[in-house]
This record gives sequence, C-alpha cells and structure tokens, in this order.
Amino acid sequence: MFILLNLKGYACDAAALGEMAHEVAEATDVRIAVAPQAAQLGAVARTGVETWAQHIAAHGHGSHTGSQLGEAAATAGATGTLLNHSERRLSLADIDAGIQQAREADLETVVCANTPAQIGSVARLAPDAVAVEPPALIGSGTPVSKADPDIVRDAVDAAGAIDSSVPVLCGAGISTGEDVSLAAELGAEGVLLASGVAAAADPRAALSALVDGA
Amino acid sequence: MFILLNLKGYACDAAALGEMAHEVAEATDVRIAVAPQAAQLGAVARTGVETWAQHIAAHGHGSHTGSQLGEAAATAGATGTLLNHSERRLSLADIDAGIQQAREADLETVVCANTPAQIGSVARLAPDAVAVEPPALIGSGTPVSKADPDIVRDAVDAAGAIDSSVPVLCGAGISTGEDVSLAAELGAEGVLLASGVAAAADPRAALSALVDGA
Amino acid sequence: MFILLNLKGYACDAAALGEMAHEVAEATDVRIAVAPQAAQLGAVARTGVETWAQHIAAHGHGSHTGSQLGEAAATAGATGTLLNHSERRLSLADIDAGIQQAREADLETVVCANTPAQIGSVARLAPDAVAVEPPALIGSGTPVSKADPDIVRDAVDAAGAIDSSVPVLCGAGISTGEDVSLAAELGAEGVLLASGVAAAADPRAALSALVDGA
Amino acid sequence: MFILLNLKGYACDAAALGEMAHEVAEATDVRIAVAPQAAQLGAVARTGVETWAQHIAAHGHGSHTGSQLGEAAATAGATGTLLNHSERRLSLADIDAGIQQAREADLETVVCANTPAQIGSVARLAPDAVAVEPPALIGSGTPVSKADPDIVRDAVDAAGAIDSSVPVLCGAGISTGEDVSLAAELGAEGVLLASGVAAAADPRAALSALVDGA
Repeated sequence: MFILLNLKGYACDAAALGEMAHEVAEATDVRIAVAPQAAQLGAVARTGVETWAQHIAAHGHGSHTGSQLGEAAATAGATGTLLNHSERRLSLADIDAGIQQAREADLETVVCANTPAQIGSVARLAPDAVAVEPPALIGSGTPVSKADPDIVRDAVDAAGAIDSSVPVLCGAGISTGEDVSLAAELGAEGVLLASGVAAAADPRAALSALVDGA
Repeated sequence: MFILLNLKGYACDAAALGEMAHEVAEATDVRIAVAPQAAQLGAVARTGVETWAQHIAAHGHGSHTGSQLGEAAATAGATGTLLNHSERRLSLADIDAGIQQAREADLETVVCANTPAQIGSVARLAPDAVAVEPPALIGSGTPVSKADPDIVRDAVDAAGAIDSSVPVLCGAGISTGEDVSLAAELGAEGVLLASGVAAAADPRAALSALVDGA
Repeated sequence: MFILLNLKGYACDAAALGEMAHEVAEATDVRIAVAPQAAQLGAVARTGVETWAQHIAAHGHGSHTGSQLGEAAATAGATGTLLNHSERRLSLADIDAGIQQAREADLETVVCANTPAQIGSVARLAPDAVAVEPPALIGSGTPVSKADPDIVRDAVDAAGAIDSSVPVLCGAGISTGEDVSLAAELGAEGVLLASGVAAAADPRAALSALVDGA
Repeated sequence: MFILLNLKGYACDAAALGEMAHEVAEATDVRIAVAPQAAQLGAVARTGVETWAQHIAAHGHGSHTGSQLGEAAATAGATGTLLNHSERRLSLADIDAGIQQAREADLETVVCANTPAQIGSVARLAPDAVAVEPPALIGSGTPVSKADPDIVRDAVDAAGAIDSSVPVLCGAGISTGEDVSLAAELGAEGVLLASGVAAAADPRAALSALVDGA
C-alpha cells in the first residue's frame, strides 16, 4: 500500500511531519509520501521523505504569474503530484495537460476524482495512478472503505476497464489501520490521508497505526 | 525606487538570480526583491535577497489542497506578495481577503491593476502599495513609462485621491535604467520587472543598468 | 426606493412573477424590476415589468461559447444588469469591463460587493449604482438593515466618498416593509430581494408588503 | 448527419438565422439545430428550428445568481445543450453533473473535447454524443477533417472503445459541403459549425452548401 499524506492548508509544521513520516517509512516496508504546500516542498524533501506536490500547473514555462510549474516542484524535491483534488478541481483539458507536464518533469501523478465513472474518465488520460475520494466523506471521520465500500470496488473496476495496470487509491475519512486494510481488501493499492494524521493529537501514533494496516 | 523582479514561470535558476540580485542590491542603495514560484521561495530567501511571493491564497488555514497560504510563504522566507497580477486575476472579494491574509502573515502587499481607475479601486482596500501594469504592454519591450506616461501619472493621481501615502509602482515593458528614471519622474516609487532581467542574455548587466536609473 | 427582485436559480414561474411584479408596480409609485435567468429575460420583459439580467459577460461580440453578452440581454428586453453578485464573483478587471459592456448595450448597472470597503472599490469604477450584501446574511431571513445597520451606513459613506451621486442599494435577508423602510432611513435608495418574495407562499402579498415600506 | 450551428457571441440576428436554418432543414432531410446565447433561446425556438443551449449549469435549482439552469433553458424551448466547449471549459466533476442536469431537464447533450483521449474520457460519463474540436483549428477556415483526419478517426475509435453507440461529431474549421462529407467518411455523425455560417456573407447559401454534403 502507498500512503500519501496530504497536508492541505493545515496549520502544521510540514518539515517536522515530513521527518516523522520518513522515520515511520524507514522503520517499515510501507511507501509513505508527504504532500505539503508548494513553499514547503524543499523543507519536506530535505527530510528524506518521498515528497509530492498538491497540484501543478497545466502549462510549461512562460509568462504565468502565481502558478506552480511541475519543473519547479521537481527542482524543489518533489517526485510526484496530485491533480484534480476535489478542493482544486481542474478542467478536463487541464487534467490532460497537467499529466503531460508532470511527465515532462519526471513527476509521478495521482489524479483524483469523485466517483467511479469519473475515475474511468481520468484513467483514460494515462495517469500513473488514480484516487477516488467522495467529497461528502472528506474530513468526515467516516472512512470511504466502510461508508460505501462499493465506491472503492466500482472505482477499481472502472479504472481496470480502461487500463488494468493503473493503481487505484482511495481517500476520505481514512484514519485507522483497519480502514487501510479494508481499502486494500477492496482492491485499493493506496490511501490518501489528510486530517487523520495531520490534525491528530499524536501524528506519529496515528501514522504508525495506519501503517500497521497497510 | 523599489525594484521587484517577478520570475513568473520562466525557465531560470531562481536561486542564482536571487544571489545575483542580492549582490547588486548590496552594492547599491536600491531596494531589490525577487519573486520566484512558491516552490523556490526558500531557495531564493536563503541567498539573502528580499523575497516575495507571486500570489497567496485568499483564505487561511484549512482544507485547501493546492493553495499557497500566506503563512507558508512567510515560513519559507517571503516578506511580501504580489496580488491580482494580470496573469492571476482575483475577484474583488479575494483581493480584499488576500490583503488581510498577507497582513496576518506579516507579508507586505503590492496589488496590481490594469488601469488608473482600477488602481483607485484597489487602493481603497488598503494594500501596502499598488502597481499599474497595462496588460497590452507586458513583455512588449515598450516601457509603459514611454508608451503611455499618462497611465503612470493617472495611476499616481488615482491612488493619491484615495490615500496619498500609498506608493505606486509601474510595470510592463521596463528594461532600461532610463525606463526606471522616467517612471520615477512620473511619480512611481518602484517598478515591476520580469523578462527584461530574467530573460536577458546577461541578467546581472540588465539589472545593474536598471538600478543605475533608480 | 428601487426594489430589485433577483429570481436567482429558483424553481419558479419567472413570467408569472414578472406579471405580478408589474401589476404591483403599476398600482404604486414604486420602481420594481425583476431579474430572471438569461433564458427567461424575454418572457419576463413581455409582461411589461422592468427586466434586469443577473450577470453579463465582460467581453463584447466574438468567439465566446456559453457567455451571455450585454447586447443579447438588451435585445431580449433587459434594461439593466447586476454584476459581481456574491454568487457570481468577478475579477476586478471583469467588473470594470462588464460596466463598460453594459454601458455600450444601454443597460443600467448595479454592482454588488460584500463590505463597505469593497463598495468604495466598485464605486470607483463608475457603475450606475452599487449594492452591499453581506454574504453571511443572504437567505438568512435576518435583514442586513437590522442585523448590522452600520454596514448600510458605512456603505453609503464609502460610496459617497468616491461619488456622492451613486445610489447605494442593500440586500441580504430583506423580507418585510419594515426592513425596506429601515434601509431607506440608513441611506439606501433601493433593496435587493430574492427568496423573501420568490420563495414566499404568496409572492404578491410578500411584494406588496415590501412596497408598503418603500 | 447532425448539423449543430453554434452562434457563440457573434453579432448576428439569432432569430433570423434560426428561421433560415429551419427553412433549410425543412427543405431537406438533414437534422439542423441552432445554439444561440441563453437570452435568445426563446426567440430562436419560436422559429420552429431545433434549439440548443451553448452551456448549462452543473447544479439544479437554488441560490445561484447569473447561472443558466437546464430547466430554464428547456422552458425557453431548448431541447439540447453543448457542454465543455473549449471556450467554456468545465471541471470533470461539472461535466458529469451537467450531463445529469441536462438529463433531468430532458435536454440532449453534446460534450466537447479537444483530443481523442479526452473524447474517451467524456464518453465514459454517458453523454448523448461527443464532439471533438481541436482548439487550434477553431475559426481557422481549415477543416479538421482535412487538416488532421486522424483526429476524427481516433476520436471515433476512442468513443467506440467506451461505448460503441455514442455518436461523434467533429468541429473546427468546417465551412463547405465537402468538409461535411469528409467528416462523415471518417465516421463522424455530425458537425459543429460556427463562423462558417454565422459570419458568412450569405448564411443561407453557406448552410445550404453544407447540407448538400451531409
């Protein structure tokens, strides 16, 4: 299982969480990555943890003020990027172009979508992986793998119908090792986490518990 | 004069440009700041040069994936931010909220606008400074201070009618020391630069020539 | 007082509401306009009631699919348009351009804003009128004129400081004649209504009661 | 062949073009629809021609100012709608929701996309039809069917791989009967037209010539 920890816009010490996640990953065989805001990519990458961007621009170099380009994210140490998170929805054309920009910058991609049908849509654009996150469950504390296991199963089927090799992650409400192992049973090859770890009283304990289920 | 060098999404070595700009600033009395993409804020700030963000989010901490918050920019070393650049236009409500977010993060603000009337509008929201940049002249090689000096004069008047203490910068097409000194004669207290330095064959020579006009 | 009834995206019979509003307006001296969705502009205008668009594009004729241009709204019978409603926020540049497009199409403008400071900003762009609507009170049932009378007073002052001739409307939570007369006492020259009439059990009674306060 | 005439934001008499298109359609067996701006839907529908919206909102009834809902478009006489035109790009989630809103309002859908891969993506969301329009050729006068016939063939294949019953239209640069018949040979079941007819010196002659190729 791939555990991708999205730090969103939380008030947190991104570098400290990166260091902790790196130690947890080192102590186990589980792949863990941390996705901070763009300005913290360098600080997180310097901890040694696998570092992801939360978003990159759909365009390449040029006169674009206030964009975060894939290449600049990679220069700062990112090796992957989320795209089309439900908190940062993109046009279809920009998802397509964003995947291509990521590829040119050697960034792995996880493209998010809300439903199994939309997972089929984004799988058609050849991302490295897809992630299904029902918006209603994000931050709810109710894991998608329990609240609606069919969403995960159907997402795996929808992606597989397009390309059987594309891994499916799931997210929304994941906070325990049991949630992670249930996701794996449903066919997911990874989970997207956010507040379950970043906002936990003891983030290391929370992440370690999750890893036990991976 | 305040010289604010916007690196946009250019293919360039942000840290090297930051170091160069720092040396030029140290060798003169002119205030120079460099605004890289968010992921390079830390690398630029470590050169010692005054470092600005190109944009920050209009919201504070929370579940916002793919945003760049003011506080995170400040943590990375930024001390100011552009807002509402014509390549990153914001709703009026977000300009207002962005200025407040910047203030909470101790970031200075330069709010851009296209015309003297719009400069009056943004001046009303109490930014630290405003910048007039006619979109048609951006990247044109024709400096606004020559192409249409009335835009600069009228912008200074428009800002002054709202708040006589708010400095006005101007941008678009600035590339020589003469452009800078002309801008100063028209009442501007700074200039926004971009390709004139970042895309110059010899950026140090280009910046030094500009500083001579400041 | 000017009573501007915004039908938003409500499930309602726009033409029937237009006819009713026309009859109420005819029976009194109060100016009443109805703002339906673009596709209903013609049907509402044919009732004889003053008809407004809820929004127009910031650009003129050209290759723009899915936009509603000012001229086409005017052809359908509109004589005015809202701009920058908090449910349709525009960039500052588009507010400016939208006002100009409206002027070219002979449409009167009411430009909305959330706060007194933002009212000052939009007043600077020379609209025909401005409207302050605190988003938190929209649809709340609590009229802005009671919940926070200072917002109305301060908006009147903010607009007046820019241009003493620009009328200020207020909106959010207005549903009774008392709300309207209180708004007038605070300096407003009109009110924006929506659910208070459109979603009322008896819209004619609701509008008539409002008009009594005008 | 289905000929769908998108009037975009052109300066034109939508009702007169609707009447003309209706007469041409009546005189032949070819299906022709006209897509005006929302405010002209009623005027066009009253000519008897098949009438389409250029866009509808992704949401249903509610507090949405400045949106055009599917139901209101249908009430005005529309029987179909374009979605995701390259001049009105939508998020993937909104394409999905827009298709559902159209279905609830009994509007047929043609969902546009720029490339064969994106056609595969949108076909996965079960629209009534898809349309491939390479942005670079829109308004170019060079028909996609000649400039890059593989785009049309690949789009037909991409849609067919998802659902063999979903018709594919093509657009961009179509202006002669030969362009239309070539599109049909490549597997397209319709064409999107715009300036080729709407901006023609003699729109009736232009449309008649196109119909001869259908």
